[in-house]
Amino acid sequence: MLGIGNALVDVISQEDDGFLASLGVPKGSMTLVDEDVATEVYDRMGPAIEISGGSAANTIVGVAALGGTAQYIGKVRDDQLGEVFAHDIRATGVLYETPLATAGPPTGRCLVMVTPDAQRTMQTYLGASVHLGPGDVDPEAVRRAGVLYLEGYLFDPPEAQEAFRVAAGHAREAGRSVSVTLSDSFCVERHRAAFTDLVEHHVDLVFANEAEILALYEVDRFEDAVARIRDHGVVAALTRSERGSVVVTADEVVEVPAHPVEELVDTTGAGDLYAAGFLYGYSRGMDLATCGALGSLAASEVISHVGARPEADLRALAAQILG
Amino acid sequence: MLGIGNALVDVISQEDDGFLASLGVPKGSMTLVDEDVATEVYDRMGPAIEISGGSAANTIVGVAALGGTAQYIGKVRDDQLGEVFAHDIRATGVLYETPLATAGPPTGRCLVMVTPDAQRTMQTYLGASVHLGPGDVDPEAVRRAGVLYLEGYLFDPPEAQEAFRVAAGHAREAGRSVSVTLSDSFCVERHRAAFTDLVEHHVDLVFANEAEILALYEVDRFEDAVARIRDHGVVAALTRSERGSVVVTADEVVEVPAHPVEELVDTTGAGDLYAAGFLYGYSRGMDLATCGALGSLAASEVISHVGARPEADLRALAAQILG
Repeated sequence: MLGIGNALVDVISQEDDGFLASLGVPKGSMTLVDEDVATEVYDRMGPAIEISGGSAANTIVGVAALGGTAQYIGKVRDDQLGEVFAHDIRATGVLYETPLATAGPPTGRCLVMVTPDAQRTMQTYLGASVHLGPGDVDPEAVRRAGVLYLEGYLFDPPEAQEAFRVAAGHAREAGRSVSVTLSDSFCVERHRAAFTDLVEHHVDLVFANEAEILALYEVDRFEDAVARIRDHGVVAALTRSERGSVVVTADEVVEVPAHPVEELVDTTGAGDLYAAGFLYGYSRGMDLATCGALGSLAASEVISHVGARPEADLRALAAQILG
Repeated sequence: MLGIGNALVDVISQEDDGFLASLGVPKGSMTLVDEDVATEVYDRMGPAIEISGGSAANTIVGVAALGGTAQYIGKVRDDQLGEVFAHDIRATGVLYETPLATAGPPTGRCLVMVTPDAQRTMQTYLGASVHLGPGDVDPEAVRRAGVLYLEGYLFDPPEAQEAFRVAAGHAREAGRSVSVTLSDSFCVERHRAAFTDLVEHHVDLVFANEAEILALYEVDRFEDAVARIRDHGVVAALTRSERGSVVVTADEVVEVPAHPVEELVDTTGAGDLYAAGFLYGYSRGMDLATCGALGSLAASEVISHVGARPEADLRALAAQILG
C-alpha cells in the first residue's frame, strides 16, 4: 500500500463554538490559510498539543498499525516539525523516503480546533507540502504497491495535483488499484469537475462521507448520490458517522454498522482510519463487508482519544473481527 | 507567583519495560543527555506526541489554571519548539517575557517514556535552557511576586544555578517567600550539599517526594527525614504517591490524603501539579490542610491523562474544595 498526501503536523486545542464563530468558519470544515493567518489563529488558540497528522499519512499509519506493508510520500521541511513528522511515521513501520525540503516554507501544520461535541474544525497551512511534485513520485514504489491511495486534498497545491495524476498513471499502467478519498466537501466544491472525472474514469475505489458525495453530485439525497456513483464501475465506501457506512458497487450494496465507541472524544481522523481499516482488508482480498467492518473498527479507536493517529494496538483489535 | 525553571517541550511515547532496560536507565528517573544521545533515543522511540513541559513551567501553568496570577522565566530558542512552548504557556494566561535565544542550541526537550504501569522515565536534553542566566531574572518581577518558585533541576546547568541564587536573593531581600522543589532524587544526589544548605538556610517552603527527601538526608526511613527537616523552620510538603502527602513545619504535621483517580494514565507532572495546587492556596494564605488538598486535587487531574499540563478546568474542580 502506497499513500500520497499533504504531510502535516496537527496542532490540537479544545475550543468552544464561539471561537469558531469568531473565525467565521463552518464547524467540521477544513479551510486553507496562509502563514500569516495560521500564526494569527494559533496566537488566539488555547494551549495545544502537537501530533503528526496529514490525512493520507494517518491512513497509511493505520494500515501499518494493522500489520500491512505501507509506504508514504509527502513533503516536509528540514525543521523540527519535519523531524517530528518523519519520526512518527517511520516509528510505526511505514517506509518514508521523500527528501526533506531544504528551502522554502516550513513544515505544514493543521490547526485542529476540537469543540465540546467532539467535532473538529481545521485551518491548514500547507507549508512545505505545496512543493510535493511529480519528481517525488517514485514510479517503482507505485508499481510495487498493490494499492495506491491518494487524498483529494492533493488537488489544492498545483504541483501536488500533478504528482497525484502522475502516480495514478503509473499505478494504472502497472495494473494496480487506485483509491482516492474526496477529503472534504469544500475541497470537492473547489475541484468538482476534476473529481468527477477521476471517479468516473480513473479510480477503482472511492472513499467519501455523506457531505462529500452529495457535494460531488450536487444532490440533496444520499440515495441519489449512491445511485449516481453505482453507474461508474467503482467500489465506493461511503461513511455516515454514527450511522456506519455503505459500501456499493454496480452489483452490491453492503450496509456496515458503526463500531460502538465508549466515549466520543475527538472525531479527527475518523475518515482516515476508516480508510485504513478498509484498505487493509481490501488489499488482502477480503469481502466488502469485512473491509467495512475493519474500517468501522479503526475509526472507532481513533475517535475515542485526541489526535488522528491510532493509540491502541489495532492489530489486536482487528484479530477480534478476523478471528 | 513567579516560577523559574528549565523550559522544555515533552516528547511522549508509550514504551515497555524492555525499552527502558535497553537504555539502562532506572524507571521513574530523569537523566540528562546530550543532543546526540537524545537523537539516538528519539530514533528508537515509538510514535510520540509533543506537549509543552518543564517542571516549574507545569507548576506555574497549574497556578494560572487555578486562577492565580503567574509569571514564568525560562529559556527557549527562536525555533518551532520554542514557539510551541511560548504559545502554550501564554495561552494559559501566564506572563512569559524571557527573550528567546537567537543562537546556540535548540529548544530543550524531554523524552518521556510512559510504561504500562503509568510510570514515566525521562531523558532530558536541556538545549537552550542551559543559557538561562542571572541576566534573565528581572528583579522587579521577583519583588512583585508574593512567592518565588524554583526547581531543583536548575542546579544542573551552571548559569541557571546562578540565576536561581540571584532570584532567591532578590526575593528574600524583598521579604517574599521562596519555595523550591527538590525535583528528582538523582538531582538531589548530584547537588546534595547545595540543596541541604538551601533547605536549611535560604527557603521558606520545600516540595519533595519520598525518594528525594530520603536522598537529601541520606536516610532510609521517611520518619527520620521528616524529623530532620522539621528542625529547620521551613514548611515541607512531602508527597508519597497514592499515600497522599504530609505537610510539616516545626509545630505541625498535617496528613493529606491522595485525591481519588478514576484511571491512572501517566504520572508525568504529578509533583509539578501538586506544587501548583499547594502554592495557589499558600499564596492566598490558606491553611496547610487546604493547600495540601488543592495539591492532591491538581495532581489527580494531571495523572488521569497523557502529558504534564492540566486539561480539565482546575478552577471549577477547586471550587468543589473551596466551596
